Amino acid sequence: MKKLLFTPGPLSTSDTVKQQMLVDVGSRDSEFIHAVKDIQSELLRLAGVSKQDGYESVLIQGSGTFGIESVISSAVPGSGRLLILSNGAYGERMVKIAEVHRIPFDVLRFDEDQVTSPDNVMSYLEANTGFTHLACVHSETTTGLINPIKEIGALCIQHHIQYIVDAMSSFGGVTMDLKSSFIDYLVSSSNKCIEGVPGFSFALCRKSSLDACKGQARTLTLDLYAQWLGLETNGQFRFTPPTLSIMAFRQAIMELEAEGGIGAREKRYKQNKNMLDAGMKEMGFQFYLIPEIQGHIITSFLYPDDPLFNFERFYKKLSERGFVIYPGKLSKRDAFRIGNIGQIFPEDIARLLIAIKEVLAEDGVTI
Amino acid sequence: MKKLLFTPGPLSTSDTVKQQMLVDVGSRDSEFIHAVKDIQSELLRLAGVSKQDGYESVLIQGSGTFGIESVISSAVPGSGRLLILSNGAYGERMVKIAEVHRIPFDVLRFDEDQVTSPDNVMSYLEANTGFTHLACVHSETTTGLINPIKEIGALCIQHHIQYIVDAMSSFGGVTMDLKSSFIDYLVSSSNKCIEGVPGFSFALCRKSSLDACKGQARTLTLDLYAQWLGLETNGQFRFTPPTLSIMAFRQAIMELEAEGGIGAREKRYKQNKNMLDAGMKEMGFQFYLIPEIQGHIITSFLYPDDPLFNFERFYKKLSERGFVIYPGKLSKRDAFRIGNIGQIFPEDIARLLIAIKEVLAEDGVTI
Repeated sequence: MKKLLFTPGPLSTSDTVKQQMLVDVGSRDSEFIHAVKDIQSELLRLAGVSKQDGYESVLIQGSGTFGIESVISSAVPGSGRLLILSNGAYGERMVKIAEVHRIPFDVLRFDEDQVTSPDNVMSYLEANTGFTHLACVHSETTTGLINPIKEIGALCIQHHIQYIVDAMSSFGGVTMDLKSSFIDYLVSSSNKCIEGVPGFSFALCRKSSLDACKGQARTLTLDLYAQWLGLETNGQFRFTPPTLSIMAFRQAIMELEAEGGIGAREKRYKQNKNMLDAGMKEMGFQFYLIPEIQGHIITSFLYPDDPLFNFERFYKKLSERGFVIYPGKLSKRDAFRIGNIGQIFPEDIARLLIAIKEVLAEDGVTI
Repeated sequence: MKKLLFTPGPLSTSDTVKQQMLVDVGSRDSEFIHAVKDIQSELLRLAGVSKQDGYESVLIQGSGTFGIESVISSAVPGSGRLLILSNGAYGERMVKIAEVHRIPFDVLRFDEDQVTSPDNVMSYLEANTGFTHLACVHSETTTGLINPIKEIGALCIQHHIQYIVDAMSSFGGVTMDLKSSFIDYLVSSSNKCIEGVPGFSFALCRKSSLDACKGQARTLTLDLYAQWLGLETNGQFRFTPPTLSIMAFRQAIMELEAEGGIGAREKRYKQNKNMLDAGMKEMGFQFYLIPEIQGHIITSFLYPDDPLFNFERFYKKLSERGFVIYPGKLSKRDAFRIGNIGQIFPEDIARLLIAIKEVLAEDGVTI
């Protein structure tokens, strides 16, 4: 059964994107190599930079977390020190990466319903010196809030700190600019706002920072510099790439362009969000975040108080109707999430809202 | 243009396998979770074992090398010692993995045109003690030879050494049995003899060995035990899986069954090989390996002596005719490779042979 995915990814993609996977391609064949080159330069363009500006694009196999682990474990030397800003599960994931690789690090934690406040970061950097790198999540998928990455970037450049941004669920759906945010490494994945299928992640890197990674990696497969160098040398991946996901991704980038670029896509996602917000509010659902910090990528809704509400049943009934929503990930509150990204349009949100109403009525849940 | 891939993977897959990727699925949806469970048990069955026998199947994102790095960096403790048998690029790749993770290891090297001789391994194990793990490649894709993994397994059990087998290009295309070869970890990938699309690898593990990996991993994303535990706990991947490649893989396993299982597939691949061998021999091509150790997965052919032969041109012209062959990887000789695996049938080999003849004639190459 064909279902619509209201998730943070894998998400609903267009048929024309998926149809790119119907023809086998050789990983060393020129057609494939050209597609990879196209993708590399298009990704930079979407971030407002280019190779000529001193930026490079690296495709990394595996999910977004593979990309994050590749960057952190390649960029921060043993003699360095990483400051991780955390206000959710994805910040904590970076903590785990630093721990397992024994990378010297501090973590500056914020409540899950608060952004990573630039004021607090500034005070921390003034009171604690010696950081070479700072990592922050842009759209915290745990809750759906958007952290102020531009303001934090300004602090990084001021303190001569290299800046790593996890823009997993935001890149392609939120207008951003690597240069003016002083980002050294931005990581995202194929199956988020660019609306490709899952299979790989990518890092957009300031070339001078990337060069410093040479010989520093702590793994073979996630060696960011070696991965870049392999692609640069002959256009080939060091290790068998997910060829078909990559062919689909090139089509997804073309469709992003056809939609009108990131600005137009952001507008559609915001329309989705506004419609979802209004409909859910009308039914009485409570939002976890205050509107000021709520992003338009994904929204966390608190469970209704009515004991008749059972998330598993709610999820299953919606799924049977063709709507896949997403469980919550808050550390202290029960919530579920609904994503606004992917090939989802206001009319789909309208249909989802009707289905939610029906399921609640069927189960006798009052909010 | 639709091309046939005579490569070690990504290889030609059936249309019905690729068509599984035309429907988006949620990574936490029951349909997907069921597919993963099916795949896990089917993979064990193909290896002649089951969960009840004390074996487990772990799917790992990324190419085969990600699977190998996951196993080596999770299985060998800092207090352990790994013996790597190497007679090609894939043995050397394991050396690189051990080096980057600072895993204590020895490497026992053989010439690329020789198998990893059990006699030599036995002598080495008698002269050098303290090994906890041994790793060997089954089908060395560098050359196409098949190493005697069963005989080496017997030495491992005798010396109480855990046994890691890289069966990347052989699993599904060569009859084998985990138990009688005393294998603790067998690694292969989605886009080899099971004829799925690229996107992930898998490790089939003796449960008691896998249990010992707990807390030992040197990375987050390639933590073999945590990956298994995540799948075991709720059927979900720890990190966004390549959903569509996985759906395609389940179809590929069903088609392997429909073909008659590994035995029938092995027979087809051998028919391909015999036809290729005869045709190439007739044209005068020289084989790199002696027939006794040449496997039926992929064959290395030496470049003709005629200076008119130019591999790049040869490759390109074949590719333009719809036949993708593979460059060589020998350390000291110039060769190219032709794979017999994937959705390739004797009639395709016949067409490839005609194309090769035509291209050689066109370029005036004599052999």
